This record gives sequence, C-alpha cells and structure tokens, in this order.
Amino acid sequence: MAAGSSFGELFRITTWGESHGKAIGVVVDGCPAGLPLSGEEIQAYLDRRKPGQSRYASHRNESDAVEILSGTFEGMTTGTPISMIVRNTDQRSKDYSNIQDLFRPGHADFGYFEKYGIRDYRGGGRSSGRETIGRVAGGAVAAKLLESLGVTVRAYAKSIGTVSITSFDEEEIFRNPLCMPDADAASRASELVTRAMAEKNSLGGTIECVAKGMPAGFGDPVFRKLDAALAGAVMSIGAVKGVEIGDGFAVSRSTGADDNDGFIRKEDGTVTTGTNHAGGILGGISDGNTIILRAAVKPTPSIARPQNTVDTSGTPCGIEIHGRHDPVIVPRACVVVECMTALVLADAILCGASSRLDRLKRLLGR
Amino acid sequence: MAAGSSFGELFRITTWGESHGKAIGVVVDGCPAGLPLSGEEIQAYLDRRKPGQSRYASHRNESDAVEILSGTFEGMTTGTPISMIVRNTDQRSKDYSNIQDLFRPGHADFGYFEKYGIRDYRGGGRSSGRETIGRVAGGAVAAKLLESLGVTVRAYAKSIGTVSITSFDEEEIFRNPLCMPDADAASRASELVTRAMAEKNSLGGTIECVAKGMPAGFGDPVFRKLDAALAGAVMSIGAVKGVEIGDGFAVSRSTGADDNDGFIRKEDGTVTTGTNHAGGILGGISDGNTIILRAAVKPTPSIARPQNTVDTSGTPCGIEIHGRHDPVIVPRACVVVECMTALVLADAILCGASSRLDRLKRLLGR
Amino acid sequence: MAAGSSFGELFRITTWGESHGKAIGVVVDGCPAGLPLSGEEIQAYLDRRKPGQSRYASHRNESDAVEILSGTFEGMTTGTPISMIVRNTDQRSKDYSNIQDLFRPGHADFGYFEKYGIRDYRGGGRSSGRETIGRVAGGAVAAKLLESLGVTVRAYAKSIGTVSITSFDEEEIFRNPLCMPDADAASRASELVTRAMAEKNSLGGTIECVAKGMPAGFGDPVFRKLDAALAGAVMSIGAVKGVEIGDGFAVSRSTGADDNDGFIRKEDGTVTTGTNHAGGILGGISDGNTIILRAAVKPTPSIARPQNTVDTSGTPCGIEIHGRHDPVIVPRACVVVECMTALVLADAILCGASSRLDRLKRLLGR
Amino acid sequence: MAAGSSFGELFRITTWGESHGKAIGVVVDGCPAGLPLSGEEIQAYLDRRKPGQSRYASHRNESDAVEILSGTFEGMTTGTPISMIVRNTDQRSKDYSNIQDLFRPGHADFGYFEKYGIRDYRGGGRSSGRETIGRVAGGAVAAKLLESLGVTVRAYAKSIGTVSITSFDEEEIFRNPLCMPDADAASRASELVTRAMAEKNSLGGTIECVAKGMPAGFGDPVFRKLDAALAGAVMSIGAVKGVEIGDGFAVSRSTGADDNDGFIRKEDGTVTTGTNHAGGILGGISDGNTIILRAAVKPTPSIARPQNTVDTSGTPCGIEIHGRHDPVIVPRACVVVECMTALVLADAILCGASSRLDRLKRLLGR
Repeated sequence: MAAGSSFGELFRITTWGESHGKAIGVVVDGCPAGLPLSGEEIQAYLDRRKPGQSRYASHRNESDAVEILSGTFEGMTTGTPISMIVRNTDQRSKDYSNIQDLFRPGHADFGYFEKYGIRDYRGGGRSSGRETIGRVAGGAVAAKLLESLGVTVRAYAKSIGTVSITSFDEEEIFRNPLCMPDADAASRASELVTRAMAEKNSLGGTIECVAKGMPAGFGDPVFRKLDAALAGAVMSIGAVKGVEIGDGFAVSRSTGADDNDGFIRKEDGTVTTGTNHAGGILGGISDGNTIILRAAVKPTPSIARPQNTVDTSGTPCGIEIHGRHDPVIVPRACVVVECMTALVLADAILCGASSRLDRLKRLLGR
Repeated sequence: MAAGSSFGELFRITTWGESHGKAIGVVVDGCPAGLPLSGEEIQAYLDRRKPGQSRYASHRNESDAVEILSGTFEGMTTGTPISMIVRNTDQRSKDYSNIQDLFRPGHADFGYFEKYGIRDYRGGGRSSGRETIGRVAGGAVAAKLLESLGVTVRAYAKSIGTVSITSFDEEEIFRNPLCMPDADAASRASELVTRAMAEKNSLGGTIECVAKGMPAGFGDPVFRKLDAALAGAVMSIGAVKGVEIGDGFAVSRSTGADDNDGFIRKEDGTVTTGTNHAGGILGGISDGNTIILRAAVKPTPSIARPQNTVDTSGTPCGIEIHGRHDPVIVPRACVVVECMTALVLADAILCGASSRLDRLKRLLGR
Repeated sequence: MAAGSSFGELFRITTWGESHGKAIGVVVDGCPAGLPLSGEEIQAYLDRRKPGQSRYASHRNESDAVEILSGTFEGMTTGTPISMIVRNTDQRSKDYSNIQDLFRPGHADFGYFEKYGIRDYRGGGRSSGRETIGRVAGGAVAAKLLESLGVTVRAYAKSIGTVSITSFDEEEIFRNPLCMPDADAASRASELVTRAMAEKNSLGGTIECVAKGMPAGFGDPVFRKLDAALAGAVMSIGAVKGVEIGDGFAVSRSTGADDNDGFIRKEDGTVTTGTNHAGGILGGISDGNTIILRAAVKPTPSIARPQNTVDTSGTPCGIEIHGRHDPVIVPRACVVVECMTALVLADAILCGASSRLDRLKRLLGR
Repeated sequence: MAAGSSFGELFRITTWGESHGKAIGVVVDGCPAGLPLSGEEIQAYLDRRKPGQSRYASHRNESDAVEILSGTFEGMTTGTPISMIVRNTDQRSKDYSNIQDLFRPGHADFGYFEKYGIRDYRGGGRSSGRETIGRVAGGAVAAKLLESLGVTVRAYAKSIGTVSITSFDEEEIFRNPLCMPDADAASRASELVTRAMAEKNSLGGTIECVAKGMPAGFGDPVFRKLDAALAGAVMSIGAVKGVEIGDGFAVSRSTGADDNDGFIRKEDGTVTTGTNHAGGILGGISDGNTIILRAAVKPTPSIARPQNTVDTSGTPCGIEIHGRHDPVIVPRACVVVECMTALVLADAILCGASSRLDRLKRLLGR
C-alpha cells in the first residue's frame, strides 16, 4: 500500500494506467461473493465521467468502454478479484511535445520529476484526470454492494465559481451538464463557464455528497474514523483542496449548544439524531443519520493563456498549454466523489462485521 | 490496521488506552536507528496538551508524565519499537455514573454502543481527548526525526469562535493560553470564551499548521497523496470536521489564472513555486514550498446546560453533563495537529527513499 | 507493518520491548467486544514460557507478571486495544559486557549491526527469546477468542535432538519439563539434554501443533492462504528453520493416489476429508479437518564452549558465552507456536466474516 | 490486503484472473523508477512455466503472451504501477462440466464452496496453477530490480518423487524438462514420471532456491523476519506443503556446536559466515551469505484414476478427472519459487532503505 495505488482494507481497489498509455484499469479485491454484477452497471458510472459530452468538457474522444476480465461467473461476483480495463483510444501525445521539458503551473510535473527522476510529459501520467477511471469502475462495484445492503450514495455540484445552488431537485442533477440539482443556478453557472472559456481561463467549485441508509455503529474510533477515511479518500482526488463533514468549517464559529445533535427515537424504534450538524458521524462512527460531506475543487490548472514557469534545467520560460481541457472539472468529478465515498462506506461495513463476538457467533452458528 | 489503532506505513504508531483506564500509550515502529531521543523532549510536547494549565482548560489534574519503555539505548533510537506510557492518575469515574445509561449529544457514545454492543460510560473511552496523548508522544518522535532532516512543523489557533488572527508573531503562540500568534486577537477571544463559560456553553475554532523545509518530490500520486494523507490524519482527530490545504475552500471561487503557482528558480538554484496557493503540494507530491493546512474544530460537546437525548433503551430523557471539560479545545488541539502532520511527513520521507533506482544504488553502494 | 512489529490483519498484535530494557509488551487491536478476559488467563500462558522452571531452562529469574492496561471493562473486552505489559526485573546487562564488541555465532548481532548501524549488545535486544512474551500474551487472547468459537489449539515437542515421540498422551505434555506427550521419549530426551549440558553444547527439536474445530471455508486463495499465513507466523519465531503442514516434506515422495484426501459426509451431515494428509488445509482454505503443522527448531546458539568469530571492526577472535541460556528451547517454544497458530486462525475467522453477501445481509439484518 | 490478492509492502504485486476466465494479470506497484524493462524479459520468465512444453506438462495449448499495459516509458519503469496481462486462449470449460457438482480430492473446491457459497467448477478458478502467471510476471520485475543491485536468484528441482540430485550443474537446469541440475538424476526421475503417467498417478518433489549477492542487514527482527516472509511467500504457492531455510529440518537433530556459523572476514574486508547452516539469514536478517531455501511440492491432485468424494449436496460418489494435467508440477513450479523469492528480497531491500538515519540524511543530502 505504501506506493499508494491501492485503497481500502477489506474492500480494496488497486488502480493502474497513465493518461497516454495503452489502457487504464482497476482490480477490486475483497468484494463479497454473490453480488449480481454486470458490465453495463459499471459502464453507466464511467459514462458519467466520460469526456466530450458537453461543451464544458474536454473534447478528447474516448468511448471509455469497460471490460470485466475476472471475478464474476454467471452474472455474480465470485469473491475473487474483479479486474476491469478501459483501453485508451485517443492519446495524441503530440499535443504535449511542445511542453515536454516544461513544468506546467498548477500541475504535478515538477514533483514527479523530483520524485522519480524522469519527465513523463504525456499528459501527466498518473496525475491526469483519466486516473479516476479506475476509481469510478471500482467505486461502482462498491455502490452496487451498498445498494444491496440498503445504502445509497449521491454527489452533485453545490457551487461552480461564485454560483451556489439555492434549491434541490435530485433529478435535475442529470438534466444539466454541470450536475447541479438547481436548474436556475446551473444556467447562471454556465454563463460563468462560457465567459471563463472566452478568457482562456478556468473555474472551480464545490461538490456535495450524501449517503442515505448507512447503519449506525460503523467506522473506527481513532485513526480509521469514518470521517477521516472519507476525508483521505476525497482529498486523494486530484484538484480537491478541502473536505468537510456535516457543518464542516462553519462549526468553528458555532457553539456547543447549537452544534450538538440531540438523540431521538424514530417511529420504528431505532435511535438517531434529531438535527444533523455532525453529518451522520460522531467520534468517527456512523450515528444512523444521513452522511454528508463537501469537497472544494480547484480551477482546472491547464489554461490556454501564457504563463510563467521553468524548464527541467530550471531556466525560467513562458508556457502555453493547448491540448484539450475542461474549463471546469467539477461536473465530471461528482461521480468520482460519489465512488470514493462508496468505497469507504463499503469497506467500513466489511470491517465492522467482526466488531462484536455475538455477531461472529451468529455468523459461525456457534 | 483495519481496527484502526495504527497509523502510518513505514513510520508507524499504534496507540492504546482509555480516558479512565490505568494508562495511555503508544508504540512507535519504524523510526530509523541513530536518532538522539530523550524523555524530556517527548514530555515537552505532552505538556502542551496537558489539562489544568489555564482557566480555559479542563481542571482534571494529570501530570501526564511519560516513560520510555523501549527502543532507545544510550540516548539514541535503536530502530526497534519505541514504547511510551503515561499513567492515568485522576480518573474520577464517579463523575460519569449519573450518565452511564445516557447517550451524550455530540459524543460517540451511541455509535460505540451500536458498534461494540457495550456501554463504556467512563468518559468516552477511546473517544476522549486523552486518546491524543499517544498521538502527541508518537508525533514528537516524528517531529524530532524531521528536525534532524531540516523540516520544522508548527501549529497554532487561527481563530476561536468568531475571532480570527490578523497578525502573526510565532513567539506569541506560547505566551497566551489560547495559542494564538496574535496577542490582540487572543485577548478578544478570551473574552468570548469567558462569556461562553458563564453561559454553560462552549466554542470551536480553526487551527493552522505550517511545515517548512519539506523537500520536493515526496508523497504519492494517487491514494496516498501527501494532502490526502494529511487530510485523513488531521480529520482523525476528534472534533475536527473539516480540513483544507493551501487556499482550501477559497479555490472553489478562484480561477486557473489566479490559482496556478508559477515555478521559479531560487538563488540556490533549486526550483519552487513563486506564489503558494497550493500549500506546498501539487498532485499529491511536495513541490518544495511551505506546506500549509487548516482544520476546523467543533465546540466542545460536553456542556453543563440541560440537553435532550435518549438512554440505552431508547427512552427520551434530559441530560446534564458535569465532569471537567474545556470550554474550547482548540488551544490544546494545536499540538495534536502539529504531531499528526509530523507523522505524515516523516512517513512520506521514509516511503520516498525507495522511489528511484539511482537512490537505491547509492544507498547500497552498488 | 513494514517495520515488522505488527502481525495480523483484523486481529492484530503489535509487540515491543528488548530483553534487557525496562519492560516487554503487546497491543492487541481488533479483538471483538464482549469476550470475557482476565489477567489470570493471560498469565497462565506466560507461565508456560517463563524461564527458571526446570534445570533445562535458563535460570534467569523473572516472574513475568502481566498487567492488562487497557481494552477491558468489567471483565470483558470492549473492542478497543488491549495493552499488556511485563516488567523486566532481572536484566544483568553485565553478563554481556565481555562480548559487547563481538558477533555471537548463530545470533543476529551482525545483521542488526549492518541494518541499524549500532551494536545493542544487551542480550540481543529484539532477537532475544524474551521478545516472544508479547506473542504469547497476544496469542492467549486469540486462543480465548477461538475457544469461545469452538476452536482449540495445542502444541507440544514431537522430537528433541534424535529422540522422537512414539505415543501420544495429551496430559503428559504438562507433566514433563520437555513438553513431550510421551513419558518414555521425554526421559530418553532428558538424558540427551543432560549430556549436551555437560558438553557445553545444546540441542534442537521439532514442535507439532494441532488445531481442532476450525470450521471449513476460512483462509484465502492466493497470498494469504491459511497455510502460508501459518508458515510465515511460525517461521517468524526465532530459531525456527522449517515449517510443514500435514504430511509436509513427506508429500514430495508420495503419489497423488496416496496423498489425496477423499471427501466424506460425517454423521452430522457436514462434509470433511476421510484421511488428512493435507493437514486440514486445501488450496489455502480450511477443509473442516484438524489443522496440523510442525516446526523445526535449531539448537540454542548460545553455548559455553569457545567459538571463533569477529568483532565489530572485523577482526577475528575467540568468544565464550556465559550468561544464562537454555540447553534446548523447544519446551518453552511450544506455547509460542501455539499462540502464533491461534493468532492466524483468529484473524482468518475475522477476515472470513465478510466473504459472502448472504452473511453480511444476515449480520446487518438487511 | 486482507482479501489476499496483494503481496509485499513497498514492492507490491496484486494478481487477478481465473484459470478459465478471459485473462490473468498482475499489477506491480512500488517498483523504483529508472529500471530498464521490456516485455521480452517478462516473457522469458513466463515461458519457463508455460504448459505444453514437454510430455511431462499439461497439453493445454497457451501462448501465455504477456502485454505490458502501463508503468514504463521509453523502455524504463516510471515508478507508476506496471500492469501486465496474459489472455487465456484455450479454456475448454467443457472439460469440467462432468464434475461441476463434485468436490475433487486434493483440491480447494470444497473450501471455496464453504467460503464463497458458490461452485465455480471451471478448473478451480484462483486455485489453478494458472494463477501463478501473475506471480511470475511480477516476480520477473523484482528479479530484474535485484539483478541491477547485484543480487541473483535461481531455483531448480532438487528431487522428484524418490530421486534426488547428487551433483550440480547450473546449465543442466535448462537442458532437461524436469529442471534438475543433474542430468543423471533427471533421466532416472523421468522414468519414474513415465511410470506414474502409465498408472494414472502423479508425483511430487522438492525445489531448492538460491539467492546470491544479498547484502547483509536486510529483513526485520520480529514478524517480518526475512525467512518468515520467504516461508509465507513460498508456502502461498499452491501444492507447497513445507518450507525450510538453510539446513532446515536437519537442525532439529544437530547441536549448537555443529549448527553455529562462525563469522569470518573476507578478503574484501567485509564480514560473513564461514559455514552456512543458517542459509544466509540469522534472526530474520540477512548475514551476507548465500540465501538457501527448499520447498516440498505435493503430487498433482488431479489424476485420471477413479476416486471417492462427495457432491455439493454431500452425497458420496465416485469421480474421474480427465482434463489436461501435469503428472508432476515441480519443473514448472521452479520459476514460481524463484519469483516469490525475488519478490521478498526486493521488498526487503526497499523497506531497509529507511532503517538508519545516516542513510536518510545521505539520501536527502542533508
């Protein structure tokens, strides 16, 4: 795990592949046996992050068709590793030849060069947005597992640039190209994006993710707190610079009397919190309420206007980045946040299965 | 690791101990051999989080004296596990007897009850602030290691309630009980805290942490991005509800042209970024600039005023929490954020040692 | 985990402490909540490996009294880390002063010196037999957990030097100081040991371990095969130079027709194998039959007769090792093999809890 | 890692794929950047385990052609995951249709059925010998890395059935189909195998593996002892039932005076052991001498003669296994043992890079 291409304890994914290599893929290890799973279900998730779908997304032309190579038999998971692959069909490395010795501002080029001692200029290799294909294919399996256990996860754009949503209509998320659950905000945001494109500039935004049906009592007390795992998972998505749970940064200006969520008994007799300032997690463990998190996404660093930088020899120079880039990556990043959240919750449920002796005895019938 | 009391890959700590048990401790595994280390150095860090030091801190009377039980010989680390223990001397479990069947609002009690099937009412067991003693003792070793490699880490209160710092004087951090680097802000904040105490209420705040001297090229590209590891580490501290790196949430309203940090060559010939919107990390890898992060800390959930909750049978009832609690935990949490940051950076440097074949050959003299 | 003082995935122990440091201990993380556990139960296991119990064991005088510092409440495990400590009371470092610059033949001194760059001459630090105290205290908890699930583990001396057992009486294991289940073999072996002591020499032997009641279907298919985990666990015990499962090395001279274990249906309707050449594990997964393994233990390397070696500067010289050493460590190592086996089986059961969706649904009542 | 398809700490492989699925593959994560690597080099290792190469090997007709999908650029590793895939071209699942409800003696079928609740009868899925393709492709990269650091690894058949080698000629290993370094033993062994085939029976054997040039001071003191890691790695290969290091089980009958390896100074001034009873590892750490291990391989469980078993309903019945199976798998398993050994040694070297502060300072130039 130290090299960092694997994620999760019991429900674990390992991703591989560069933006301009032959293919990109993921291995899902630890998915329980007996889960119905089809390539179409995975494809539906991948299609949500696919480029070239709107004028606000990179025009790179990729079908991003996924192939399941192992781990299923007769439409069900077998418990063995699920390997999935997506071939890169439209690399165009030449797009990058003019900047192969330059470090792009806002990109990982320089860090990679220091870390690995080489300059793989082809679109940033593993730091490219295409790296998220593996996360999404793997997260789709986690989401399917959660669904079968009654847990649903959904992410959407809460703000783009300076435009935030003021209403919520879940279906609207899939109706506008910006994945905002508020049609009016979406149209105002699209004007902003159009202007940014005209100015060879880019925008950022925030993504909100909501998980419903998570049972209480999952997550761990200390370093593997459920919110800690979620924060690490979401912050590991390129371009995310902040993560908050529940009321997040606003709690710093609140008081105990206002922020505490009192416990109540629901009609079905189960216990949960009345308010949800905590975002469904207390002390790192799910409290039975809806889990809510938000991520801050920075503006796309690749912009067409001239910028200053240095080359691999350290010599100052100017740079102009052409290639094909999204003016704002928030819309395509929503499904990635959703998938990373699903991976964390699925893993927490699997790890929690052994937290009590009475559960184990029931499991073994002993 | 799944049970979550261990943290780190090569530089790893494992913490143990409950607030009202016999003792609390940590095992540091993977610290390189040859590092000068004394109990006094560890104690200096623990003293910064010790209770009873000001009228803004719990009056629990603990010396929190640390004992190093293994891993050092003649004042140097040996490379074997460093075990450290702090005895609990002032438990007063009776403080909790009146609420032993109630779930405290804003606390992990209910989640623990669901997860473990038992109610350890003694001050929250592992969810108590005393759990951080292990983090601080272990983090002090990491900070010592970083120091010997030229990396320094410092955290302080950036805001308490609605009062934020407007100036920065590092020495002031240790002069006022609120750990704010701005004497004026500190005095205004202390009035806020005094009022909150009078109202049987509590406050939150934000903590900022800066790491200087981190070499470029450390961290990993995907799931173990340096910022992802930092976010998970800091969010794993109880009461933290948000984490941001560099400009953090503000980037969501910025543009690529404004947010990108152009690379420059320093006088010493090394490369770094001119501005530092990214907070010293690009694509998950250090860029040679100062690493900056902030954490949002919620108000202390234990407040003396009456609140509504339910008991272990789910019956609604009122609760009044007496015991001894800080009106704001931000000041004592600063050293914890500092230590978690140090643990992540030390681990990243150890893991990075093997990222290049030329480095390995040099290490082995082959 | 890379530094290697932790063992296990979900049921994990982390050990610490040097032979001549202040204390030795272990942290057990991931033990399910609700397991009745007392210090007396742990002590009973430690007493089986305690020195000074017979003329065949080191005369070092240690009470090896264990103290449980965390993780239990009102006599039951709470699910939080169980920290246990044993103070060293009789170090006598002076015993080693005369060899502090010499590398003892058969010992790890030289490897440690190369690895860590320092020479901790005090009885070998972590390579001393006392390191196993942490394994035994942690393994005792695993054995207790297994017992509550109907699985029992027992290890004994199968041979000492050239004397092997020819009969089996479980109670005899605890009657003779050599832990052999065959009184006649034990008396013949004790003559061998007496002679070796007179000749300032030492002996080795083999340990056999059997686990009964392990349910079928636990373990993993590839790298975490149950037998692979057992082999790694047992080979990690100092002085063990070989491990075999079931018929072990004898299978290399057998044939498929003779070695295959046909499956049968037991009276209770469950399936298992008729013969047990495989030792209860097929393809890395338990088959419902008794698990059997054997370990080869080398002769104690510390012997009083003069030997040739070099010092830390590489200069050839003679060495005579006095101190207090067992002429054969097999008897005291039996409980260590038993505990490492218990740790592996407990972990396999915890990890197996999430292998099937139907089990998870049952656990969550969904 | 708990699901067990990943192996290693810093140099880590994750394998996937079933015998009768679409493909089999491996992801190598953590390989240092800058290592020259070509598909031909990987193919050369895979060809050594390929079926259909002699009358002693399964006639399954597979080219086992490997494709490198990521992790290299311009013929060098980039430090990012190296994904490799081998397509299955000759599945013939029908071969198994007649036994799809039966549990094959000596196979993992029953354990899988209990663990996963399903019966994937297609040649055993992950328990098939084809699973080792991923190990060999990944191990070939590790071997290449070791080679660049001056460490070489070689495995061969030491015995087949009752025939053991009595001489050693390294080149002979590649001249005879049984991979024995002794032509005479090879011809006698081949008569044994021919007879076993005529009797619809199968044979086992032992494999010896030798690693030269491993520097002293690598491996860890406790649970990750170098020999423990090797034992777990080799025992994780299907059909291996025993592992020993150096003199292995023979040490149980030796004495301290005979078994201890005295240290000597070599002409080049470095220190090592004169004799090598320990097999190059003392206390879990390399001592600078040649590393030697042996594995016991059981006879191929799939034999054509009638055997007794039960079906998935537990009903006793007879079974005849046709398909295509090796009469002895030892020859093809040699390269697998070699690769697992290389993986462990490469990982130990990477993990060891951070064991000393002086090394880290040199690394960072601080």
